[in-house]
Amino acid sequence: MRMYDIIAKKRDGYKLTESEIRYFVDGVTSGEIPDYEISALLMAMFIRGMDDEETSVLTDAMANSGDSVDLSGFGDLSVDKHSTGGVGDKTSLIISPIVAALGCKVAKMSGRGLGHTGGTVDKLESIPGYRTSVSPEEFIGITEKVGLSLVGQSGNMAPADKKLYALRDVTATVNSIPLITSSIMSKKLAAGAKNIVLDVKVGSGAFMKTPEDAESLALSMVNIGKRCGRKVSAVLTDMNTPLGCAVGNSLEVTEAVGVLKGEVHGELRDVCIVLASEMVSLVYGIPEDEAEKKVLDVLDSGAAYEKMKEWISASGGDVSYVENTELFAKAEYEKTVVSPTDGYITGMNAEKIGTASVILGAGREKKSDLIDHSAGIIISAHTGDYVKKGEVLCTLYTNKEKSLDCAERLYLDALELGEKMSEKSPTVYKIIR
Amino acid sequence: MRMYDIIAKKRDGYKLTESEIRYFVDGVTSGEIPDYEISALLMAMFIRGMDDEETSVLTDAMANSGDSVDLSGFGDLSVDKHSTGGVGDKTSLIISPIVAALGCKVAKMSGRGLGHTGGTVDKLESIPGYRTSVSPEEFIGITEKVGLSLVGQSGNMAPADKKLYALRDVTATVNSIPLITSSIMSKKLAAGAKNIVLDVKVGSGAFMKTPEDAESLALSMVNIGKRCGRKVSAVLTDMNTPLGCAVGNSLEVTEAVGVLKGEVHGELRDVCIVLASEMVSLVYGIPEDEAEKKVLDVLDSGAAYEKMKEWISASGGDVSYVENTELFAKAEYEKTVVSPTDGYITGMNAEKIGTASVILGAGREKKSDLIDHSAGIIISAHTGDYVKKGEVLCTLYTNKEKSLDCAERLYLDALELGEKMSEKSPTVYKIIR
Repeated sequence: MRMYDIIAKKRDGYKLTESEIRYFVDGVTSGEIPDYEISALLMAMFIRGMDDEETSVLTDAMANSGDSVDLSGFGDLSVDKHSTGGVGDKTSLIISPIVAALGCKVAKMSGRGLGHTGGTVDKLESIPGYRTSVSPEEFIGITEKVGLSLVGQSGNMAPADKKLYALRDVTATVNSIPLITSSIMSKKLAAGAKNIVLDVKVGSGAFMKTPEDAESLALSMVNIGKRCGRKVSAVLTDMNTPLGCAVGNSLEVTEAVGVLKGEVHGELRDVCIVLASEMVSLVYGIPEDEAEKKVLDVLDSGAAYEKMKEWISASGGDVSYVENTELFAKAEYEKTVVSPTDGYITGMNAEKIGTASVILGAGREKKSDLIDHSAGIIISAHTGDYVKKGEVLCTLYTNKEKSLDCAERLYLDALELGEKMSEKSPTVYKIIR
Repeated sequence: MRMYDIIAKKRDGYKLTESEIRYFVDGVTSGEIPDYEISALLMAMFIRGMDDEETSVLTDAMANSGDSVDLSGFGDLSVDKHSTGGVGDKTSLIISPIVAALGCKVAKMSGRGLGHTGGTVDKLESIPGYRTSVSPEEFIGITEKVGLSLVGQSGNMAPADKKLYALRDVTATVNSIPLITSSIMSKKLAAGAKNIVLDVKVGSGAFMKTPEDAESLALSMVNIGKRCGRKVSAVLTDMNTPLGCAVGNSLEVTEAVGVLKGEVHGELRDVCIVLASEMVSLVYGIPEDEAEKKVLDVLDSGAAYEKMKEWISASGGDVSYVENTELFAKAEYEKTVVSPTDGYITGMNAEKIGTASVILGAGREKKSDLIDHSAGIIISAHTGDYVKKGEVLCTLYTNKEKSLDCAERLYLDALELGEKMSEKSPTVYKIIR
């Protein structure tokens, strides 16, 4: 078999065989196929596309290109959730204890923030003592005991995807549904959960800007996940505006705790209920409305909040910060951003708001940057709200006083203000099972 | 300007601007653009195509990426011929003295053989003393004096094409009309001739297998050449069978001399007359039939043969070898290949015959291989001929006795024998001006 022939075949729009795709992934993993051949094939795959069979073989081959997590000991109870990435997305912190309180097993590896989106691991590290780097045994042990462990990525998971993603990123071949599908799903398959719920973000702050594109991606991922032997569903949720009010690490933990305590309502809670219900429905094979009842039960009874404390405590975290979020260190400087005019907020560019939070210190522009856990933004007015001139739009928090003006400008730039109320996008567009 | 955006634009099928294409070629030439980005763009160009404007900018940019030959001293008289590559193609050796005898100026750089096709420079080096490597001054000086100089490529001509071709060769992006056009025409532009005749080969032994594909390429090259300020025409000639009877260096020189002496007739001579007439017609702006009369005149009068001797002599070659081709060293071993059955030769795979000649020592498998100038094949029966069992098909010549059996097998494998005479393909399909 020759890489040249595989490239030529896809270039001409033909379907690749299983052995051709596995030959390619093996050569990428071993480093035997040079970058220029890989990028030629990626471009041909991008333009010519791949069908479900090709995509599922590519996904499976990448999933098996490195280490994987063995969750078989949890039988059908293991469940994972993946978000395609958003701003202010703290749903993992809320959903995981909810479903664990209902007997599901969540052994989840999460990423760190990079660019305008935050990472769950950074958020958890704002709780003093929380250990995001543990041995595989402890990772499984905590899950067994509490039903839930959430740590940073370790091991050499899906190295073929890592290599391919790095090349796609510089050769304009990222935005292809079969390639995105195989990239996301290969990592999810290697992460080992039997049940997977995908939170596919839609809108200005998301990778997929329209519901149609998001639906195509969701259908593809659900389909490929099922072909690879997992139970999968996808929820299309809105990212035309940041999710909830907090953007920034300890600020987001505080908001998440608020949802579990029953103090915070609104869209963030609504999205979490839908996602958690979907997870419970998959794990137990029960109808969505029955699952939702269970989810509301553990929220209302405080069982989910208790599960959060149990989980934080088992992971070495100081649970008093959960019990009293006032303990989190406050940023030294804060500034309220006010509306320059009367009007409706007709749009919020979540990406720009994410970037404003990075400037304040809440995220990383490059991998080696340090995170300021207290920095971030609390949003007071969302898309659809009417604001008067001088009314508070948000509050900025930082320990770098100089960053305030720049973040303020970016925040105002992210907003669209209009005289007429624009149609509000739904919180949840669609569920694909 | 960013390479990423240029790739994305062509990926989506949009037309690139002149400055984008020049940015790309500059970056390729300087080595600043990494191979994986170049090959991604090449694949996008291959699949999405390029229009004439893009192709002519690409051609011009590559032509100007390195050295070029200044033939402006010859005014409108300079003329070049380019063949897309064939087996047994010794037309340059015949045409060049014909048109030089008619006052045209041929300052031509040719390549060496690689793989199954031979190179004019190797053929000339079978004449003792002939210098294929001369100073630029001598190259122009001989052309001035004799009207004709034929040497090996020197200098750093079209380095961007060299780099792109090497990548296309390993990423399955060779066979694209805009890319082939820009590759060939950039080198022809840098070679400096005002008038260019392209010999586009069609058939099993050629790059273009069908007359339709060859015509598309010819139209594109003529068009781009004109856009870049040259007078260009293209002749589509048959390569379903090797051209003439000889394959191999001194064997081909002998056959070429035979045509100029008026001893060899047939398809080889016919093709040379058409190509030479086209060159004369371009240079003097006269009708094709008038040009053909002039060509036949210098062939019949012996003026073209005299011009060949003058040229070989001016280039340091021993002209007695031209006067008496029996002087060429004979290969030590020869073997006649006979027909295994009665029948019509319905096809000859020129590529396999070329490879057989390489095995005998007439060509190179890799650049560093040495050439045996006496090795090769004399073909006795061509496509369309009826042969009886045991009748001689060809004679193999070599100094490596062991190679005879392998070359014989390959030669027989190259032939198709059938009971019915197949339709003979024309020698010249079409002329595109």
